[in-house]
Amino acid sequence: MTLPGSLGALIDALRVLPGVGPKSAARMAYHLLQRDRNGAARLARGLTDALDKLRQCERCNNFSESPVCEICASPRRDPRLLCVVEMPADLNRLEETHAYKGLYFVLMGRLSPLDQVGPREIGLERLIERARDGVTEEVILATNFTSEGEATAHYAGELLKARGLRVSRIARGLPAGGELEHVDGMTIAQALLDRRPA
Amino acid sequence: MTLPGSLGALIDALRVLPGVGPKSAARMAYHLLQRDRNGAARLARGLTDALDKLRQCERCNNFSESPVCEICASPRRDPRLLCVVEMPADLNRLEETHAYKGLYFVLMGRLSPLDQVGPREIGLERLIERARDGVTEEVILATNFTSEGEATAHYAGELLKARGLRVSRIARGLPAGGELEHVDGMTIAQALLDRRPA
Repeated sequence: MTLPGSLGALIDALRVLPGVGPKSAARMAYHLLQRDRNGAARLARGLTDALDKLRQCERCNNFSESPVCEICASPRRDPRLLCVVEMPADLNRLEETHAYKGLYFVLMGRLSPLDQVGPREIGLERLIERARDGVTEEVILATNFTSEGEATAHYAGELLKARGLRVSRIARGLPAGGELEHVDGMTIAQALLDRRPA
Repeated sequence: MTLPGSLGALIDALRVLPGVGPKSAARMAYHLLQRDRNGAARLARGLTDALDKLRQCERCNNFSESPVCEICASPRRDPRLLCVVEMPADLNRLEETHAYKGLYFVLMGRLSPLDQVGPREIGLERLIERARDGVTEEVILATNFTSEGEATAHYAGELLKARGLRVSRIARGLPAGGELEHVDGMTIAQALLDRRPA
């Protein structure tokens, strides 16, 4: 089969997207060319623009268009609290709750030895340096409760404590509105273990 | 949550891809920005290039970088046969078999009344005009054996026959190496119906 060069190149290029194999790349290319040329142009501009403008915030490591992001630069945030999350999406979820007014550090990953992601790859040194700014009083580890997130929290926690920092971990337990009857056993066991004085 | 403008725009733009919702668009954006900036640049170039260079072949409607595509322009193809397919991917599959040496017409779709895709949207008029070039002797309908593909073949077939053209449909039957024991009943019934003199 002979594809025009630019079509073959586009199909190849679409495979840089996570989870996109040769068949869906071809489907995407045909869809864009046949039904959404404006969308394709917008996507090309969006990519170029984002590559141009986005860098990582010097303080929290999240994506930002300025050297220091809006949250880190805000005088209304409590600089004594530093919350560590795996990904920008996690930070966004926390922000949506309006329940946290401290600062963040985004690891942009998690320890994952099988994928060759070690402490260096997720920038734990930068986290420690950041936490030792003399203002941070508590580091809240808010990585996921997956085995990788747990390992990351454990490892980071040890490093931070060794430098004399106060470290905490977000709580596990029943979800809001959760009923014992419908919650998995692991969560119930953890809620018992983490019980607190009433 | 406050996303930097160019990041929000990129996430939005990724949703032009078929099957990509807000969550996977965000995941794709973070993946590209964090782990594959070269890939993102390549994708932007691929899109721009394809939009620039690709048009639809004047004769067969397939994507091409020249006004008439390689297949339509080839003197080694038999111009008496015109094979109608739904999508470029179908043409590619037929070409891979090396079993067909005629020309093609690519509908770029199929009749699908529920999605408001009627005869006009899939360019059946262009097909008829193309088939009436005075050289075409037989139009082979190779749309899929789905209900939409069948409807398309039926409708196109009627229009073509009304213009005095010879029309055929690719065969349904047992696949190569197919065993009666393992083939679905519908296919067996069709193979009986379409039996031919041995």
